[in-house]
Amino acid sequence: MQRRAVIPDAALDGRTKGLPAGVDALAPGAIASRGWNVLREDLPLPLALLKASSLDHNARWMRAFREAAGVALAPHGKTSMSPELFQRQLADGAWGITVATVQQLRVARDAGVARVLMANQLVGRQAIGYVLDELARDPAFEFFAVVDSVDLVDQLAAAARARKAGRPLSLLVECGFAGGRTGCRTVDEAMEVARRIAAAAPFLRLAGVEGYEGSVPGKTIEEREAGIACFVAFMAEVARRGIDEGLVDADPVLLSAGGSAYFDLVTALPRAVGDRRAEVVIRSGCYLTHDSDSYAQAAARMRERTPAVASLGEGLRDAVEVWSYVQSRPEPALAILTMGKRDVSYDLHLPFARWRFRPGVDRHPTAMPVDAAITALNDQHAYLTLSPGDDLRVGDMVGCTISHPCTTFDKWRFMPIVDDDYRVVDAITTRF
Amino acid sequence: MQRRAVIPDAALDGRTKGLPAGVDALAPGAIASRGWNVLREDLPLPLALLKASSLDHNARWMRAFREAAGVALAPHGKTSMSPELFQRQLADGAWGITVATVQQLRVARDAGVARVLMANQLVGRQAIGYVLDELARDPAFEFFAVVDSVDLVDQLAAAARARKAGRPLSLLVECGFAGGRTGCRTVDEAMEVARRIAAAAPFLRLAGVEGYEGSVPGKTIEEREAGIACFVAFMAEVARRGIDEGLVDADPVLLSAGGSAYFDLVTALPRAVGDRRAEVVIRSGCYLTHDSDSYAQAAARMRERTPAVASLGEGLRDAVEVWSYVQSRPEPALAILTMGKRDVSYDLHLPFARWRFRPGVDRHPTAMPVDAAITALNDQHAYLTLSPGDDLRVGDMVGCTISHPCTTFDKWRFMPIVDDDYRVVDAITTRF
Repeated sequence: MQRRAVIPDAALDGRTKGLPAGVDALAPGAIASRGWNVLREDLPLPLALLKASSLDHNARWMRAFREAAGVALAPHGKTSMSPELFQRQLADGAWGITVATVQQLRVARDAGVARVLMANQLVGRQAIGYVLDELARDPAFEFFAVVDSVDLVDQLAAAARARKAGRPLSLLVECGFAGGRTGCRTVDEAMEVARRIAAAAPFLRLAGVEGYEGSVPGKTIEEREAGIACFVAFMAEVARRGIDEGLVDADPVLLSAGGSAYFDLVTALPRAVGDRRAEVVIRSGCYLTHDSDSYAQAAARMRERTPAVASLGEGLRDAVEVWSYVQSRPEPALAILTMGKRDVSYDLHLPFARWRFRPGVDRHPTAMPVDAAITALNDQHAYLTLSPGDDLRVGDMVGCTISHPCTTFDKWRFMPIVDDDYRVVDAITTRF
Repeated sequence: MQRRAVIPDAALDGRTKGLPAGVDALAPGAIASRGWNVLREDLPLPLALLKASSLDHNARWMRAFREAAGVALAPHGKTSMSPELFQRQLADGAWGITVATVQQLRVARDAGVARVLMANQLVGRQAIGYVLDELARDPAFEFFAVVDSVDLVDQLAAAARARKAGRPLSLLVECGFAGGRTGCRTVDEAMEVARRIAAAAPFLRLAGVEGYEGSVPGKTIEEREAGIACFVAFMAEVARRGIDEGLVDADPVLLSAGGSAYFDLVTALPRAVGDRRAEVVIRSGCYLTHDSDSYAQAAARMRERTPAVASLGEGLRDAVEVWSYVQSRPEPALAILTMGKRDVSYDLHLPFARWRFRPGVDRHPTAMPVDAAITALNDQHAYLTLSPGDDLRVGDMVGCTISHPCTTFDKWRFMPIVDDDYRVVDAITTRF
């Protein structure tokens, strides 16, 4: 086994956002033993945290979903970029980890991930060179990239021919749709790419078909769902023709789609193509942490349309909270919090003020009034509007839930995992 | 001298975004000796880089502005959070560094910064405790925080009394405006806070007045400028009354305002208050890198309204570029790039596609056609619309300029500094 050992990272210390400013170098694994409690102000705010009970629930939920649907999971690592969460996802039975860039691939490799699906085109001298070197270095490394142009197939074939990695670079032909992102727009285009890959054996091999259904357009949710059904059929058709023409060099053939909003719909991909078994690999990156808005709405719709999802009982739970202090009460209906664009996602929706807690006085957080709302974020400030009579005061803590885990994780190098009493029981690091 | 030594950070390696995935641990100071060139594809893309000639020009420009205007500069460290840039700014004559949080303060301290202005309220057990400990530990540490409520003055006084740091915690009373962010809305409110600080001697001391004019409202730029003039007069009035009442315990008295868009206007703050000298401290965080949109427009307006700015010759230059590859040309008028929300700011404006370069073919980047535009970003993709006949192809490099340095810096742990031929001549790290 030539796999690179997991490299411990001692870069956590008081300079790391979320840790007490006075602490010296600290290993992530040693954090639980400190006995910290967020509500006792043992950690500075702002602080993004993960709730252990929600993570556990979501992990169990996804395992049940995978087993019921008969699909494999390669969670998109771009969401958390956390070696600890990658390892947890693999221990939970993930087929592999999905990445978008060569840097994400390197982080996954150092976290001990053996099987990686790169759901972006593999492009550029550095990225291509690293993948070929790693294929040559470690026979246990399994890697798949997507490709949607003969132009890139030719570039990859030339690089693989020059590098002589000793085994082929595995590619999935990428399907797309008009007005969409990457991916071949038609079956003919996809087949042209597939044939070009097959013609580049033994340097390249066609291992299956990939697509991303998350941005299929539609004026209504029903239109989008119908569009996704067509897209799934398009992917299956490309796979069938690839098998029929003898272009696919993989058993099982891989069929991969499924972001966090529609992974139930892509389970309609076939489990056999011609005489070949098919492995359907979904790629949800957000299931483990979920959120309180964008993916919460997607999940509610999933339960409506997919009986197998509804039958799993309680759905995914929001596992992410971002806490901050009230730093100012400059007007009767306004509080300014010590968090901002540096600390919490703001691309899909502003955060939701859900909890309040007065240190040294309250025993548990209590719910914020429903009319309390974050109305704006600056780089380092949040504007919280309140009823004019609200007694929220400077030094009180406010807990927010979020919309879009991906753009919250990337604002943190360290996040504690807490129990339901906000005791720190574990920690993760990130590598964005 | 008890100042903590600068701690070298060896956390850069192939897991760090922007560095070749195959490299092992690497000190930032060793990067220049590698002989890397971005156009030779020695570094993976996406890559955010700084242009050395623009940094040098901007540093000279700000020194000339400071000298002409007779103001001091405490650049807001939140912009770059880069120890190397903090040190450069101090070497360029900065009075100190501004921070927003205790984590930013710790990073500044480890970078050897002796004088820090915290332009946020100092709130919470961890933040207050670290500041008091640091004041006790290092007699050379000068620290100023802002405060806008008697509530927080009382909390700070209690903490300072309990900690006995041996010298007072220095505070600036913060001025604000109706509908704004933090800060006292009226002279009466500000004076109440000022009196409360003075009454808490010897644990607290009032060192001056602070405000942030950047969000003064106005339907037109002229209205905003008029509002800022009023706000500056309000700050001066609070300072005058604080001196008259004998509340200010500092010589010179500090008067601080001035973000990156209006720092010319706050130079109207007085250089003497009553019998006391006044030090006017501006806090622009973005002057060193500037941008191509938000601050570029602000700078153009600055030149129009302030002859002293126009007389400095060429204005600030955009020093930040984010480069990525074309990974797909799925439609005649569309290219998909290998960068996204993880790599470039998108809060004020999407990035601007300005340069193109075909590796191995072109000798220099050439200008993108003016109709080429980034129309959307996903987490890891950018959508570039083009003329249908454009020959941009997969593997070509595209260089973008940005709007809002703060939300671009925070997406990178490492950025190379390049000369005009894109040779890597230096590097910075960040600590977000």
